[in-house]
Amino acid sequence: MDDRRRLARDDEEPHRGGRVRAVFPPTQPEVSLSRALLSPRRIALVGASADAGRLTARPQRYLRRHGFGGELFPVNPRAAEVLGERGYASLADIPGQIDFAYILLGTEQVEAQVAACAARGIPVACVLADGFAEAGAEGAALQARVVATAKQAGIRLLGPNSMGVINTSEKIALTTNAAFEAESIPTGRVALVSQSGSMMGALLSRGAARGLGFSHLIGTGNEADLTTGEISSLLLDDPQVDVVCLFMEAIRAPDMLAEAARKAHALGKPIVALKLGRSPFGAELAASHTGALAGTDAAADAFFRAHGILRVTMLEALLELPPLVAGRRPPARTHRAVGVMTTTGGGGALAVDALGVRGIEAKKPDAAAACKLAAAKLPTHARLLDMTLAGTKPDRVMAALDGLRAAEDTDIALAVIGSSAQFRPQDSVAGLVEAAKLPGKPVAAFLAPQAEASLRLLAEAGIAAFRTPEGAADAIAAYCSWRAPRDVVARAAPAVAIPDAPDEADARALFVALGLYSDAVVMQEAPPPALRYPVAAKILSPDIAHKTEVGGIVLNIADEAALREAAATIRARVAAGAPDARVTGILVQPMAKGLAEAILGFRRDPEVGAVVLLGAGGVLSELHRDTSLRLAPVSEDEAREMIAEVRALTPLSGWRNLPRGDLDALAKAVVAVSRLAALDGVREAEINPLIVHGEGQGVTVADAWIVRA
Amino acid sequence: MDDRRRLARDDEEPHRGGRVRAVFPPTQPEVSLSRALLSPRRIALVGASADAGRLTARPQRYLRRHGFGGELFPVNPRAAEVLGERGYASLADIPGQIDFAYILLGTEQVEAQVAACAARGIPVACVLADGFAEAGAEGAALQARVVATAKQAGIRLLGPNSMGVINTSEKIALTTNAAFEAESIPTGRVALVSQSGSMMGALLSRGAARGLGFSHLIGTGNEADLTTGEISSLLLDDPQVDVVCLFMEAIRAPDMLAEAARKAHALGKPIVALKLGRSPFGAELAASHTGALAGTDAAADAFFRAHGILRVTMLEALLELPPLVAGRRPPARTHRAVGVMTTTGGGGALAVDALGVRGIEAKKPDAAAACKLAAAKLPTHARLLDMTLAGTKPDRVMAALDGLRAAEDTDIALAVIGSSAQFRPQDSVAGLVEAAKLPGKPVAAFLAPQAEASLRLLAEAGIAAFRTPEGAADAIAAYCSWRAPRDVVARAAPAVAIPDAPDEADARALFVALGLYSDAVVMQEAPPPALRYPVAAKILSPDIAHKTEVGGIVLNIADEAALREAAATIRARVAAGAPDARVTGILVQPMAKGLAEAILGFRRDPEVGAVVLLGAGGVLSELHRDTSLRLAPVSEDEAREMIAEVRALTPLSGWRNLPRGDLDALAKAVVAVSRLAALDGVREAEINPLIVHGEGQGVTVADAWIVRA
Repeated sequence: MDDRRRLARDDEEPHRGGRVRAVFPPTQPEVSLSRALLSPRRIALVGASADAGRLTARPQRYLRRHGFGGELFPVNPRAAEVLGERGYASLADIPGQIDFAYILLGTEQVEAQVAACAARGIPVACVLADGFAEAGAEGAALQARVVATAKQAGIRLLGPNSMGVINTSEKIALTTNAAFEAESIPTGRVALVSQSGSMMGALLSRGAARGLGFSHLIGTGNEADLTTGEISSLLLDDPQVDVVCLFMEAIRAPDMLAEAARKAHALGKPIVALKLGRSPFGAELAASHTGALAGTDAAADAFFRAHGILRVTMLEALLELPPLVAGRRPPARTHRAVGVMTTTGGGGALAVDALGVRGIEAKKPDAAAACKLAAAKLPTHARLLDMTLAGTKPDRVMAALDGLRAAEDTDIALAVIGSSAQFRPQDSVAGLVEAAKLPGKPVAAFLAPQAEASLRLLAEAGIAAFRTPEGAADAIAAYCSWRAPRDVVARAAPAVAIPDAPDEADARALFVALGLYSDAVVMQEAPPPALRYPVAAKILSPDIAHKTEVGGIVLNIADEAALREAAATIRARVAAGAPDARVTGILVQPMAKGLAEAILGFRRDPEVGAVVLLGAGGVLSELHRDTSLRLAPVSEDEAREMIAEVRALTPLSGWRNLPRGDLDALAKAVVAVSRLAALDGVREAEINPLIVHGEGQGVTVADAWIVRA
Repeated sequence: MDDRRRLARDDEEPHRGGRVRAVFPPTQPEVSLSRALLSPRRIALVGASADAGRLTARPQRYLRRHGFGGELFPVNPRAAEVLGERGYASLADIPGQIDFAYILLGTEQVEAQVAACAARGIPVACVLADGFAEAGAEGAALQARVVATAKQAGIRLLGPNSMGVINTSEKIALTTNAAFEAESIPTGRVALVSQSGSMMGALLSRGAARGLGFSHLIGTGNEADLTTGEISSLLLDDPQVDVVCLFMEAIRAPDMLAEAARKAHALGKPIVALKLGRSPFGAELAASHTGALAGTDAAADAFFRAHGILRVTMLEALLELPPLVAGRRPPARTHRAVGVMTTTGGGGALAVDALGVRGIEAKKPDAAAACKLAAAKLPTHARLLDMTLAGTKPDRVMAALDGLRAAEDTDIALAVIGSSAQFRPQDSVAGLVEAAKLPGKPVAAFLAPQAEASLRLLAEAGIAAFRTPEGAADAIAAYCSWRAPRDVVARAAPAVAIPDAPDEADARALFVALGLYSDAVVMQEAPPPALRYPVAAKILSPDIAHKTEVGGIVLNIADEAALREAAATIRARVAAGAPDARVTGILVQPMAKGLAEAILGFRRDPEVGAVVLLGAGGVLSELHRDTSLRLAPVSEDEAREMIAEVRALTPLSGWRNLPRGDLDALAKAVVAVSRLAALDGVREAEINPLIVHGEGQGVTVADAWIVRA
């Protein structure tokens, strides 16, 4: 249950947070954010209930239950003693420095209590209540005021809508999450940052059941101030942390997250993310749940990829992938291929099939692997190394994995374990554990039966183990798509002035400034001289988006006389169909026919910022959703990757002996359009179609528009 | 581990099965196949080891451990006593009737033992060993001999490669599967038929861990005789069985499986299948693992759909879906929509997102649902009914589910349960259990945290519960695609003689006989009279598949003179480029240009038989894999469904005001081509492209070929 909403009913009485008495000086000795947020030793619990059954009593109970040795200051004006500890009437009454204040009161009392924290200079104030930015305009205004108060005082906010901070190695269970009712919580070297409080508990309990513990769990809620990115950065500095996992509903402060990702790469501490919004319904919910603007999932995907963040799509993969990547950096190159051994025919086939569905091939041993396997008298002939004849003794499993890892064309060695995982756990994992000790590519396991003991043993040994073939495929697909954070290419913005209401000629001028070729000219009265007929004529107006609908286009105009006539016809039709539109001229361009049409677009995603999109042109491209998207700007290499990802552009690379298109020019066009990222004045831009001619013949802008920011 | 392979090492000595002494008469009292296979009371274990640690001792140990009260006859020529029971030197020495013989010996001894079973008239002989059809030509020949022996004697074979038969309610654990080392095995009302022996154990253990038991588990292995379909039919007759689950590597005897599916529908006992081969690598493995021919996954999908078999794609969904469908028949119409309530914001959003990725929409309550929800003072405004304010008491959950079920535009009501599932299992499931008792559409649950106790309670109550949001989405997507078995439309085969080496003219003649329009004529020397120019001319030869490659096509021929010239050119080019090809003439057809091109094909899938395929034509259709496939023949309604599934044909239905195509004629063409199913002489056929003209203008065969069976 999402317990935050119960605050109003849980609290016995309203607090009088508004009247803060400044008994203690507002300045405290300097404490680092990291220390105050992740390792607080003196914690105020504002609104702590004296009734142990209440939600607001949980942080105090959980802190003490799980062994917190620091000082707690329950703030409760009606209770001199709160669950055996001295109660304080207000924050102002607490003596000495406070590292962290967890405000457990209802929404309407938060503002005053944050002010009280500000007055005391408490470095981190965490807000449990919801009813802020996600709850409409009034809540958003309240959130903005609270943030302003904190900013002014130089203190930091966690939440609102935060389930708190857990640091298992320091025995800090500063949370309302009911998962901490558990008697004990395993520790671990994976930190979790979660925008959803309840999913913190779900992931904790799922991990605990199989020996996968966390070093930290941080609930970030609405992220009014502290965001996933900034907190990830702090966690990466902690020597207890090997991997940072993110449960995200929205990407906020993308620059900070990108910075954390670069730091993660430098430190060899990977970041793994599960983000909602892969479907439109999920995106809508995530946005309404967090009060964030929803970007597109393709943009989020591009963001994670560009910054070297591993993205999983399945809940359990978020738990299962970290051991696979802990202490590793992205391979220089991946093959999207795996070596698979199995002690169960059906289970092995299931894993191979699930991997194949995700585009990962289980490869037959190559020469290097076959050589090692043959030396160990193991079979080398098949896609699936079947150990049922060779036996499943640890030394045989070890030899099989060692052999598979020697392959030069795979990324991972996967062991699929059958019934022995259920009945002889020690035996079944021993070979894996030994193999994992050797240097080389990762080893991982999928256990076909229910096998808790084996899962635990593998967790203890730091080996990635998967409960389901689909989870294995999801995590391995994420690993195979893992790249180092890309170098940020600084590309100067073109020096072009953009009018307030740009028409197609303005758009073309901009693209020409970016280096693209446009052969269109503007005609007012008389046809321009030296045209290459046949030409097309189009209405030019900042007010008309769909020129065809108002009869604003005439194609295949054979000569000057016909052009005069066409221009008159267009003007007449537009005057009738869109009488209020400002007409800025007639655009005339030679009819062009190439090998293919592309759509090349630029926009600013509300979550991740500037992105560039390439797709196939024409009416079918939309039906097939056959597009590729990257953060802008892109390098020419990235542009080439994008071209390769658009299926309908495949024929241009000489597929089936079809004539080759000018992909060099197309890649340069993608790079050029992506440079709009540096031009703040442009919100959106599109060339549709961009005509791609044969090799060496370039590309032609056939239609284009821009939208000012 | 796949234990079958260890036989050779496990058996202490070779048996002398070849010399069967006919001490007892070969005829026995008549026993039904169902009784002998599923409820044997007198069981021979041929090759049972006297050493309890051996694989071949398992069936005896497991039968006794799990309470088998019938008679066992271990056959072991070296042991007078086998694990406390009398041993027999041979099958022939066993007194009285034998229901079932499990042959535990190595591959090379199987033939003689099956002969011994035949001699005794033992109704079911089950073979554990592998090394048959899946092991190459020699194994296939051995398998054929064994089957012939059994057929001649009128006895039935299970396997080879079978892990046996388990009937939990009758305490029959007649298996070598190590999962039966477990102290106890839960019973249940779901029967499992598995072509993989090891996956039987994996599914059993996974189910047992959460209270999901099986009535039967049958390992069918290579299915040399008894197949999944026939066994499913027998299981459906058992009053202990509500649902039959299939773990399949290949579809064998598709007609029997189709018959079982019709019976399942009549009885209201659904069949749920998980089939390997969704990826090419998985298909290759499944084929090599079972010795079966691999069909395409699209054909398998069409088969399941046509016969009302629910197909899941995730391992756990095979366990989780049965309670959702037990006792149900496919809804008359599904909306691909779900009503979702949640006690955890993040968990609810996760479920909605996973459903959305599978094309299932979480719907906001419609008028009917909103009315009921409002009466219970529950929110009605959102896609996700968030119960965190309303409380999670059982009566509130019950009211929420009851309200959501009232919606007229959804198929299922799904409850997403948060931490209460972990800490207050009784409470958290009580509302679900009450709601499930009322008639109406199914209710189901996804539990966000680790929550074994709640999973068990839901299993006991017969309510579908999902461990992961992805499993929930997979199972619900299967439910939403569930249809009643289609009526088999008997369509007469056209009376057309097909030459041994058909050329395009023969192919066209066949399609004309099926009712399609072709305006091509064959020209030998002189141009045919009354042609509608411009025309295209093509070489006609049964030996040339790719006419363009040999210069065998000339387009846009303006008049008779040009046609003469073109024909001569074509003949000359072909004589040079393909001197050995038989030239049967020149095909001449008017140039046709329509709104779109389609590809319409027919073939016989090695697994499921005749299928018809519709796709978009042109070079890009292959890149987009934009096709729809059905079992042939199809009805006109099915043909229309197919047209709707091909994305690139969408514009023809008036999308974005584009001109409408003649979809009536296209649907009729699909039906016509699908009628080839009845024409045994045709193995494959294709029209590519089929030109689709505007509404009322029909379709034109632009190119066609057939392949004789």
